[in-house]
Amino acid sequence: MAISHQSIYERLTESTAVALATRLRLFEEGTVLQCKEIGDGNLNLVFHIIDINSEKGIIMKQALPYAKVVGESWPLSLKRATIEANALLTAVDYVPTLVPKVYYTDELLAFTVMEDLSRLQIARTGLIEGKNFPLLSEHIGTYLAKTLFYSSDFGLEPLKKKVLVQKFINPDLCKITEDLVFTDPFFDIDTNSFEEELRHDVEQIWADQPLKLEVAKLKQKFLTKADALLHGDLHTGSIFASETETKVIDPEFAFYGPLGFDLGQFIANLLVNAISRNSENREPLYHHIEKTWDVFSATFSQAWKKDAVEQYRDTEGYLDYVLEQAFEDAIGFAGCELIRRTIGLAHVADLDGMDSFEERISAKQHALRLGKALIRDRKSIKVLGVLQNYVNNTAKE
Amino acid sequence: MAISHQSIYERLTESTAVALATRLRLFEEGTVLQCKEIGDGNLNLVFHIIDINSEKGIIMKQALPYAKVVGESWPLSLKRATIEANALLTAVDYVPTLVPKVYYTDELLAFTVMEDLSRLQIARTGLIEGKNFPLLSEHIGTYLAKTLFYSSDFGLEPLKKKVLVQKFINPDLCKITEDLVFTDPFFDIDTNSFEEELRHDVEQIWADQPLKLEVAKLKQKFLTKADALLHGDLHTGSIFASETETKVIDPEFAFYGPLGFDLGQFIANLLVNAISRNSENREPLYHHIEKTWDVFSATFSQAWKKDAVEQYRDTEGYLDYVLEQAFEDAIGFAGCELIRRTIGLAHVADLDGMDSFEERISAKQHALRLGKALIRDRKSIKVLGVLQNYVNNTAKE
Repeated sequence: MAISHQSIYERLTESTAVALATRLRLFEEGTVLQCKEIGDGNLNLVFHIIDINSEKGIIMKQALPYAKVVGESWPLSLKRATIEANALLTAVDYVPTLVPKVYYTDELLAFTVMEDLSRLQIARTGLIEGKNFPLLSEHIGTYLAKTLFYSSDFGLEPLKKKVLVQKFINPDLCKITEDLVFTDPFFDIDTNSFEEELRHDVEQIWADQPLKLEVAKLKQKFLTKADALLHGDLHTGSIFASETETKVIDPEFAFYGPLGFDLGQFIANLLVNAISRNSENREPLYHHIEKTWDVFSATFSQAWKKDAVEQYRDTEGYLDYVLEQAFEDAIGFAGCELIRRTIGLAHVADLDGMDSFEERISAKQHALRLGKALIRDRKSIKVLGVLQNYVNNTAKE
Repeated sequence: MAISHQSIYERLTESTAVALATRLRLFEEGTVLQCKEIGDGNLNLVFHIIDINSEKGIIMKQALPYAKVVGESWPLSLKRATIEANALLTAVDYVPTLVPKVYYTDELLAFTVMEDLSRLQIARTGLIEGKNFPLLSEHIGTYLAKTLFYSSDFGLEPLKKKVLVQKFINPDLCKITEDLVFTDPFFDIDTNSFEEELRHDVEQIWADQPLKLEVAKLKQKFLTKADALLHGDLHTGSIFASETETKVIDPEFAFYGPLGFDLGQFIANLLVNAISRNSENREPLYHHIEKTWDVFSATFSQAWKKDAVEQYRDTEGYLDYVLEQAFEDAIGFAGCELIRRTIGLAHVADLDGMDSFEERISAKQHALRLGKALIRDRKSIKVLGVLQNYVNNTAKE
C-alpha cells in the first residue's frame, strides 16, 4: 500500500467526532448530540457522544500516533487501533457478554466506535473505594478460559491459528511490556520511578542475580511463546464492572503470547489492591484470586473436552500439564507485575493513592517482597490458596 | 493484492527454463546452454542449466503448487519458494560460505536461481557410502549457532525480530512437520508406513501414554516457541558436502521455532546413519554429533558475548540456561525424528536401503528404542558423549 496511515490520519476533536458520528449514521437523523473527550490523553482520545434526549451514547476511541508518558512522547504505531478492534471482534465470538460491542472501525483514521459503558465503573477505581464486584472473578475466569483456549492450537486448527498470529504481531506495544514490565524495573534505568525511601529495596533487586535470572526466563517466554491471543494488558484498569456486569476493554496490547500472562497480570493487580487495604479487608480479593483460577481451569477443561482439535487431547496428563504450566507462569508474571507497578514507570492508584506516606512506603516494600517471593517460588506454589500466606509472610521483612 | 499467484504461475519445462535463464542474462550472450531437470519431483522442479563450453552452471528451482507423496497429491502454498529464497538471503549475512549463493528470485513464478553445487554430494548419500566428511560437524555447528543466534531476541532487536517472525509465518510447511514428525507416527493414522514385522513395536508406541505425553510437550514447543529462524528440515539430505565444503540447502520449511529443533533433526539423522552401520564404523558419527554441539555452543556463546542485545545478557546463569534448554529440546526432537523416519510417511535411505531384510528390521527396531529413550531421558542427558551408550544399550531389547 503506497499511502501511509499518517497521510490520511487526522486527530479528531469533539466537533469532528460528532460530525463523523452523524455521517456514519450512528444516531437517528436529527438527534441532538453532546460530546466530551474523556480519555487520559496518554495513548488515545476517547469521545463520549450522547443523544441528549435519550441519553443513549457511544464511545469513539481514536489512537494517537505517540505515547505521552511523564511529559515525554515517543512515536507509536496507529496499527494498535486495528489490533484493538480486531481483538474485540475476535473475543465477541467466545465471550459476547464480557466485551463492549463494536459498531464501527476505521483503520486509516485509527478509530473504533463501541458500546458506551458509562453505567459501569473501572474495576480498579471501585476496588480502591472498597467495592468488591461479586461476579468479577467468575467473569474474568470465563473470559480468560474462552479467549485463550479458542485462539490456541488446542481450540483452533494450526493453519488458522498461524493466520491470527500473523495478524496480531504487535511489535510496538509488546516492546512497551518487554521494557516496562520485564526489564527496566530490574536495572538502574531512568524510566523507573520510586520514592527515595525505597532505594535500598530497589538496589537489592538490581543486585539480585538469582531473581534476575528467573525474570529473564519469564521475559523470554513473553518474547517467544505464542500460545494464545492475549489481552496483553489485563489489569484492573482495563475492566469495567458493576455488581452484575463485567466488560474487558482496551485490548490494544493484544498479541500471541504465553497462556499465563493475562492471568498473572490480573492476579497481581488484585494483590496490589489487597496490600493497599487493612489486613481485615483483604478476604474478598483472596476470594477473587482463587475463584478466577477455579473458573478458568474448569472452563478451559470443559472447552478442551468439548472442542479440542489437538490429536493428543486424550493423552493422559496433557491437559493437566498445560494447566500447570499456565499456573506456574501466571505466578511468575504476577511477581513481575507487582514489582513494576511499584518501582517502574507506570504506577497504580491502589498504592500511590494511599494517604499516609509511611503506610504507602511500607505497602510498596510489601509489594516488592511479595513480587520477589512469587517469582522465586512459582514452581513450588501449587494452589492460589497459599497466596494469602505469602501476603502475610512478606508483610514485614 | 487482487492477482493470485496461481493466475500468473506456470510450470517451467527444460526449454522454458533455458529461455528464462537467457532472458535474465544469467549467462553471457551467445552461450550454448544445456538443461536437465534433476528434482525428485515431490515438491519442486530443479533445473540444472550449464554452459556446455565452460561447464559452469546454475540451479533453477521452482516450487510446484502441490506435494506428491505416495502417489497422492495435496495442494501446497507456492509461498514456500519465497520463504526459501528469503531464508537463504537471511543466512548469507551470517554464514556466507555455508549456503548456496542466490542469483535471482521471482515470487510469482515461485522460482529461485542459485549456485550450482554439483561438485558436492548430498551428505546422506555420502554417509551411506561410508564417507565421513571431516568438516561436516564444524560447519553445521557454526551454521546453527550463527543463524539461530542472530535471528533470536538475543542477537536481534525485538522490534526487528517480530518483522521477521511475521515474514516467515509458514503454515503449510509447518503443518507437514506437525503431522508427519510429531503426530501421525504416534497414532494409528494411514500416512504411516512400516513393515508388518514392526507392528508389535509400533503398537507399543501407540499405547505408550507416558511417551506420548512427552511427544505432546515437544509438539507444543514446535507449535508455539518462536525462538529463532529455523531451517526447519535440517536432515542430511538438506546438506551438500565434500571433504572441504558444506552447504545447507532447501530451507523451504523455514519459520520461527524452538532453538533445539534443527539441531535435533541433524543429530537424529546422524544417529540413523550410525545405526545402519556395523558398530565398528560408528565412531565418525559419534564424533560429528559431539562436535556439532561443541562448535554450536562455543560459537553461540561467543556471539552472545560479542553481540547480545538482551539486557539480561550478563545475568549469571542466563546463557547456560538458554543452552541447556536448547540441548534438552534437541535430544527430544532427535527422538521424534528417529521414530518418524522409521515408521512415518517419509523414510530415509540409510535404513530402507539396508540389503539384508533381517538386519533392516533389527536396525529399525533399534531406531525406535533409541528414539523412545531419547524422548524420555532428555532432561537427564547432559552431554552428547553418552549417546554412544544409548545406541549400544538400545541395540537389543
